[in-house]
Amino acid sequence: QPPGSPGAPALTPAPGPGHKTPLSGRGWREAAPTLQADWLVGVLLLGDHPGAIWAELAEYEKLSDQVKITEEVLRADGFGENPFYHCLVAEILPEPGEPQGPFVVGYGLYYYIYSTWKGRNVYLEDIYVMPEYRGQGIGTKIIKKVAEVALDKGCSQFRLAVLNWNKKAMDLYKALGAQDLTEAEGWHSFRFEGEAMRELAGR
Amino acid sequence: QPPGSPGAPALTPAPGPGHKTPLSGRGWREAAPTLQADWLVGVLLLGDHPGAIWAELAEYEKLSDQVKITEEVLRADGFGENPFYHCLVAEILPEPGEPQGPFVVGYGLYYYIYSTWKGRNVYLEDIYVMPEYRGQGIGTKIIKKVAEVALDKGCSQFRLAVLNWNKKAMDLYKALGAQDLTEAEGWHSFRFEGEAMRELAGR
Repeated sequence: QPPGSPGAPALTPAPGPGHKTPLSGRGWREAAPTLQADWLVGVLLLGDHPGAIWAELAEYEKLSDQVKITEEVLRADGFGENPFYHCLVAEILPEPGEPQGPFVVGYGLYYYIYSTWKGRNVYLEDIYVMPEYRGQGIGTKIIKKVAEVALDKGCSQFRLAVLNWNKKAMDLYKALGAQDLTEAEGWHSFRFEGEAMRELAGR
Repeated sequence: QPPGSPGAPALTPAPGPGHKTPLSGRGWREAAPTLQADWLVGVLLLGDHPGAIWAELAEYEKLSDQVKITEEVLRADGFGENPFYHCLVAEILPEPGEPQGPFVVGYGLYYYIYSTWKGRNVYLEDIYVMPEYRGQGIGTKIIKKVAEVALDKGCSQFRLAVLNWNKKAMDLYKALGAQDLTEAEGWHSFRFEGEAMRELAGR
């Protein structure tokens, strides 16, 4: 019985830095509105949480100051009746005989976007693997899973954004067949926010 | 009684190239699942439609070959119970005494995205004004309306993408207070599609 299903055992926190666990048995599942919600909200918000994935991600991207969200909002937005986002988690499953339950070391968070040329598509907003578990193909497995989800939903493509100094990620996505649209077609991402947006709206 | 509401008069096709209509009376409204749907689908799909806005946009962006969508899909996706996108249209209203009904010369098409740092946000997928009606502030009015919608929905920002050779648009967005995230933070947009995506999914 997988975690995330009713009555399933709670996810074990991931071992701390330096810990290496064989990934032979790792598995995948959609975040379900029970234990997975607790886990996701935990890693997305709590910097001192054993998972702490989200805090690591914000720090890694050097944009921690841009964080403005609460547990209630994340919970309501991702696990209500019409969730604004969906989540895939990379789990380390216990070796035979190991007492611990499975624990999560990475995730992919996505939602649906729309192209008036191609229709409904998937956007991979976050993809992250804890440092101790990198270099073992977990990120690639998350990407592949997102491609499966997109095809299952009738989407012809999925997109994501990456920072140009994150060469490792860019190289991985290109190696997996992604096209850099900023490079190839010249797309730039623009954002209106805060004071600028209120001024635009005349408020 | 505005077009788009039940029993409203059909939208008049926009006059052809070269035509100039005073914009004194132009108005705005959300696309409603009736006449506006017919109009939107028309302009999004029919290159020889008097509106022909969508075809112009694809051509303008020099990416016409990327078009793959049908009327049925656009209709179901945008005007069903849980629409994948929303639309604002810029209308020229008739002068007092003019026999014609209002006609549409521009639109903004948006949907909701999600940031694990900021929560729900708006993404402006398309913004377009017919050539004969440019330089009169219609694009700016669409942007301002999108800002209003975003704030009304509790969003802290809205985003859009622009091609780097489209200097006029970039300058306008910057003048209105937008930040070029590709320039400022180094974000690149990546896309997986077609064969690459099927290979990823192992299909």
